[in-house]
Order: sequence, then C-alpha cells, then structure tokens
Amino acid sequence: MKELMRSMKEASPVLAATDTQLRNNALKEISKALENNAEAIFAANRVDLDNAEANSLPEPVIKRLKFNSDKLRSVLDGIASLIELPDPLGHIELNRELDEGLILKRVSCPIGVIGVIFEARPDALVQISTLCLKSGNCAVLKGGSETVNTNRELFKTIYHAAVRAGLPKNCLAQAEERSQIKELLECDEYVDLLIPRGSNSFVRYIMDNTRIPVMGHADGVCHMFIDKDADLDMAIRCLIDAKTQYVSVCNALEMLLVDYEIAPDFMPKLFDALKSAHVSLRGDDSLIPYLDDETREALSYKTITPDEYHTEYLDYIMSARVVDGVSEAVAHINRYGSHHTDSIITNNDETAAIFFSLVDSANVYRNCSTRFADGYRYGFGAEVGISTGKLHARGPVGLEGLVTYKYLLTGHGHTVADYASGKKHFRFTDL
Amino acid sequence: MKELMRSMKEASPVLAATDTQLRNNALKEISKALENNAEAIFAANRVDLDNAEANSLPEPVIKRLKFNSDKLRSVLDGIASLIELPDPLGHIELNRELDEGLILKRVSCPIGVIGVIFEARPDALVQISTLCLKSGNCAVLKGGSETVNTNRELFKTIYHAAVRAGLPKNCLAQAEERSQIKELLECDEYVDLLIPRGSNSFVRYIMDNTRIPVMGHADGVCHMFIDKDADLDMAIRCLIDAKTQYVSVCNALEMLLVDYEIAPDFMPKLFDALKSAHVSLRGDDSLIPYLDDETREALSYKTITPDEYHTEYLDYIMSARVVDGVSEAVAHINRYGSHHTDSIITNNDETAAIFFSLVDSANVYRNCSTRFADGYRYGFGAEVGISTGKLHARGPVGLEGLVTYKYLLTGHGHTVADYASGKKHFRFTDL
Repeated sequence: MKELMRSMKEASPVLAATDTQLRNNALKEISKALENNAEAIFAANRVDLDNAEANSLPEPVIKRLKFNSDKLRSVLDGIASLIELPDPLGHIELNRELDEGLILKRVSCPIGVIGVIFEARPDALVQISTLCLKSGNCAVLKGGSETVNTNRELFKTIYHAAVRAGLPKNCLAQAEERSQIKELLECDEYVDLLIPRGSNSFVRYIMDNTRIPVMGHADGVCHMFIDKDADLDMAIRCLIDAKTQYVSVCNALEMLLVDYEIAPDFMPKLFDALKSAHVSLRGDDSLIPYLDDETREALSYKTITPDEYHTEYLDYIMSARVVDGVSEAVAHINRYGSHHTDSIITNNDETAAIFFSLVDSANVYRNCSTRFADGYRYGFGAEVGISTGKLHARGPVGLEGLVTYKYLLTGHGHTVADYASGKKHFRFTDL
Repeated sequence: MKELMRSMKEASPVLAATDTQLRNNALKEISKALENNAEAIFAANRVDLDNAEANSLPEPVIKRLKFNSDKLRSVLDGIASLIELPDPLGHIELNRELDEGLILKRVSCPIGVIGVIFEARPDALVQISTLCLKSGNCAVLKGGSETVNTNRELFKTIYHAAVRAGLPKNCLAQAEERSQIKELLECDEYVDLLIPRGSNSFVRYIMDNTRIPVMGHADGVCHMFIDKDADLDMAIRCLIDAKTQYVSVCNALEMLLVDYEIAPDFMPKLFDALKSAHVSLRGDDSLIPYLDDETREALSYKTITPDEYHTEYLDYIMSARVVDGVSEAVAHINRYGSHHTDSIITNNDETAAIFFSLVDSANVYRNCSTRFADGYRYGFGAEVGISTGKLHARGPVGLEGLVTYKYLLTGHGHTVADYASGKKHFRFTDL
C-alpha cells in the first residue's frame, strides 16, 4: 500500500498539469467503456447479489448493492453532467502587482492524492472516481466488501479507460482488503486527504488513527425547532418528511424542539402525526405535561436524560424537548447537535434571523425539511460527502471542495533586502 | 482551561453575530486603550527585558522581546489598516433558487474558537488578537514565556477595551502556563482550530497530540533551482537574499539545485558569493567535480546523503545538488521539500511554466527570492501564520483564512418527498 501510494503521489503533479480537454476526454472514454463492459459488470454484480442473499443481508442493503441497467444509465447521466461542469482548476483567484515587475497570482489546483472509503454501493465508486479525475486528483478507493466483485469490474473498466485516454498510470487505485485501510492511514506522507463515509464509529476510528486530514461527518443529529410563530401544519409536514422520508441517513431529523408557548396546541397534532407515521417518541421531563398513558403506549414512549440528547437513531424514533424560545433552542442545538443540519419552522422573520445567525451548523434551514442537505439537491451535480468540519469545505462537498490553490510569484531578480532597507516599497495593485 | 473554553464556545455565536461597525469600534477602543496604557505596558516589558538579560538570552531574541514606542506605533498602524479592510463576514458566496420559493444562500462566517500559540513577540499578541476579533472569532492566546509580563499587560488592555466596546465576555482569553497547552489540546469539543507557531518539533508535537484541526507549518525547507537558462547574476542575487536576508525564518533558502549544464559556469560564482556572505556549504556527491580543497575549506564544506536533503538549517548554511534539468529538480523538491516556498531562476518561459505547474508547494516563484512568502508582502495586511497544509488556507494566512461559511436554506414548507416522488422538480437558478 505504501509503495502504491508513493507512486500515486508521483503521478499526482502529472495529473494536476493535465488540461480540461484531456480530463473531459477521459471521462467520455470511461463512460463509453462502462457501456461496452456492461454485461461483465452486471455479471459481477449478480455474484455479489447471490452472496448477499446467501448471507441473508437485509432487503434495503441488497437494494443498494444492485447494479443494473437503470443504475448504469443513472451513473452515465452523472458523468455526462460532470463533463459539462466548468473546470475547477486553473482559476486565477488573485492577480496582484506587489511592485513593478513583481506579480502574484493565486491559482486553483487539485489537492493531490485523496483516499475515499465508502459504503457498499457500486454507483458511489463511479461517482467518486470521476469527481476526483475531473478535479485533477489521484484517488485510492475502498468500497464496501459486499460489492467487491462489482467494484473490481467497475474499477478495472474505469482505470483502463482513463489511462487509455492519456491520464497518468496510478491516477486511480483500488483497495479491496479491510487491512489495507490501516495501511492507508499510515501513508500521511503521500495521501493529502481522507474522505470516510459510513457509520459514526467507523468515521471516528479513521479520525483518531491518522495524521492525514479527514473530511466528512461522524454523525448527523439534526434538529427541528417549532417556534411559537410557526404554521403548525407546515411544521408537521416538514418534520414528518425530515424524520421518515429516509430514516437511515445523516440529514434525517433526530430531535424536535418545541416552544412551550405553542406546545399545548401543537402536541396533539404531533402525536397524531407520529402515530400515523409509525414513529416512536423519546422525551425528557419537559414533555410530561402533554403525555397521557394512551399516547405513551401508542408512541412506545421512553424518557431520556440530557446525556441521551445527542443520539442518532437512524430509525423510526425521534426525541423531543419543550424549550423556552429561540435562545434555548439555539443553545440546545449548539451544545448537543452535530453541526450538520438544523431547521426552524417560523413565520417570524426576526426569529428566523436569530436562528440563522446563531446556529453553528453547516446547514441552517427555515420552513423546510432537513433532508435537503445534499450535493444534488443544492445543484452541485454530485458530492463526495457532507462535511461537518469548519475548515476547507463545509456541508455538501462537490468539485469545489476537491481543490486548493497555490501562490505563483514572478519577479525579475527581486530581493527582500531592497524592501527591508527601504530602497523599494510595495505598492499593491490588483490587476 | 476546559471550563474557560466551554464559556468561550458559548460566546462564539454571539461574537459571530456582531456587525462590522461593532467589531471595528472595538478595534478603535483597543487602539486607544493601548495608547493610554502605554507606560504600564513599557514598564512590564522592562521586567521581561531585565529577566532576559539576567538569563543571558541571545541578542536577536532580546530584540524581538522589546516593546517600545516604535513597536507600539507599528501595532497601532496595523490596527488602523485592519479597521480599513473589508469585513470578511456575511459575504453571500452563493445565492440560488433550488425551486420556486426554496432559496439557498452560502454566507461567510467565523470559524468560532481559535487557539493560537506563538513565539515570544509582544507585537504578535496584538496582531493575532485583533485579526481574530475583526473576523468574529474568539481566541485563546498563548505567547512565549519570555514575554509573560508584557503579554499580561497587553492582554488585559485589549480584552477590557473589547468588552467595553460591547464584544461578549470571553471573546478572548490568555494562557500563561505551558501546562495549559496540554489542556488546550484536549478541548476538541470547544476549540475549532489551532494555529501553532514555533519550532518544527513543537508544531509536530501539537499536530500529533490533538483532534483539533491544526493550521500552520512544521518546517520550511525551501529550494531554489538554477535552470540552464538562468541569468547567473540574478541567480546569485536572489539566492543570497533568500539564504541570508534573515536566516532563522521558514521562508529562508535551505537547498540549492543547479542544472548540470550551467554548473561549470555557475559554481565559481556561487562559491565566491557564499564566501563573501559567510555561508557554509553542504552537498552530495554531485558536487564533487566542482570542488577543490581550497573551496572545501573556505566554505567549511561537508558531504550529505539523501536522508539529509530535508534539513532546515535556519543558519548560515546551505545544501546544494546538481540535477539533470527541471524534471529532476521538480522531483527532488516534491519528494524532499516541505511544500512551503520554492523558486526557479530561468529566462525560459516554458521551463518556468513546467515548474509552476508541477511543483506541489504553497508558494512557487520565478526569478525572485523565497523570502517574499509572507502575508504583509502579499498585501494581506497581516497574517496569523503560513500554512503548508492543502486544506482550507494555504500559504500566508490572513483574514480570509479565519472564516468559513454556512448554507442557509429558506423554504415554505418544502419536503424532500415531493421531489423523490417526482411531483416536483429542482430547477436551479443562480440569483
């Protein structure tokens, strides 16, 4: 692995120096090769599906493993849109004359070598590898082991097409063994960025065991705050979507906060909606006044304490708490949330402005479901993941999050001594 | 420390929500307070200077510790220019209609809580604290222990002026004990970013002992490549400036690469220049053909092996190697450098373009000294440090590197289910 990563590091400036046309041509070659090799890919996928069934994997997992002609069509569409996106490299972000004949430019360039560890979803392999190539980054890919056969066939097809199109050898690599992840974590000399996707504990393991910068999110404990000036029907519609539209994802709602002023009106509507949607309820002592025995039973109600506020259920379960206005809601979210996505339901512009200003999360919403936090839904074309870190890229990360910049300075024999002595003076002029 | 950092984390959204005027007023108050309290600050500085002399600290260190009326004037000028700089917060970087009534904005905002650990230089405390406040960040500051008295007086003056002007309590804090650094490293729940400045080993220690993201550089092994198409006199001028103008800094030249085609002409000039500048030479076997005994002695020449290529001398010592063209130079720099600042001397535009494109460093130069890598010289007004990392900010880091962004989405009861079912469709329009 170390040797492979060293070779990739050497290939990375060569890939970084390729022009837009070459990288887009490679994407076209990859698209054609996937189409031409479809039968072999589907056959490999059938092996993975058979294994999954033999291992009695749950139905939703098997659904995600499947790679058929519909999925192929969808990834080919994705590559076509990626080709259309503007090149993120070579943008001149700053062009400044520091003094006569001394010109500073800041130019966008790839990050270099990126390691992506992702769930068992064959379409993810295609998306991630093409996003990395479009942005001039070398990438090492480790997909979920349940799709090892499909991934191997997809990777072979993509890699050979890329090299055939003129991209450097070792621009992409694949890791198949779990043990290789541990080796990868030690390659801080060669790998510039890791993007782990997966369970909370897996992402934390990665973050705690490497010197390589990590981009991503460990968990998504998303909140919705129902303000006293909320449209209560809108609130129900948004929270049911946020909680139930797809329960096992990071932008699903996990904890509801309700202003005490509207709680008496709102709670009966909430309980009815949760019952219909088969969502169980958890709550702290602030919910006691609103609960009768029947409701407790219907919602499989359980009491939680503050140390359980930060819980990511990823299931048809939601916690709730009654709070005293937007200030307490914000304090709760900033303290117990995961800085992912938090929404307020209110018709009051001032309250919304306070919420937008004070909530310290990557995505802060008003009057809509938390489920919108996603690169596709933001119009980024595709995403490699969602970051809850505040450095570099935050929120859904598309092409823009895969580039950095460098400063290029051109002089004519300029020395610092001339400026230190006062013989010359800087006169900054943006060009 | 943990309790202090928790309070600071709570203050950070409040500081983030302050408007430009309030933050600029606070800077004005700070400026006035420093002026009014000058005598007490100078008196505290005299205690530090007396201690430094009693401890026989070297002359250049003592010079850096000094805080007199000249230094005060210079930091007050710095604050005045900082006030003039545009507010880095609240920029709308993206304004997009995702669908009717569903508006996404990306807005710049502070990072939150920043820990800065810096060398014994009182002016650094003023610069760093005011940069952080201008960018809406809370900051905990730990300066070098040799200036503990000056720092205490400066900090008191700055902090009280900031709070008097209306900034939240705990917007700034100071750490005085070395033991507090260890505690700070454990505050990953509350601190968003660490910026350590100091020795290679100190910065590495910080990087290896915390889960908090770290911005900065461990070392600066900067290169200059003298291409075969170089103006040799310009080359000498630039390399002597890069090596000797200030030897103990990260952007000083440490290793020279010389194209073998011009080596016979260049080496005698180089050796003469090094002798005059009292610079000792180190070199690998590639230098043997050019060295006679007299030169070896005059330059206190020593042989180095490839495992010594990555050496930061921070002294009047330089290593050199003869290479075969720009490709070998680039390969050397990318492999043995520290991705800080590397310069080519050449009159050949094509060779320069290759160097600019392939060298993987924060600052890549042509025909000038490496010593220009600095926030002031780039016209950023001030810098908190120089980053050799590729994520977030790279190179000299000014105000812009102290901000992040968040996504704000406003809807009217929008749910994802409507888009998943095909009832509604996104139609992205940038506003």
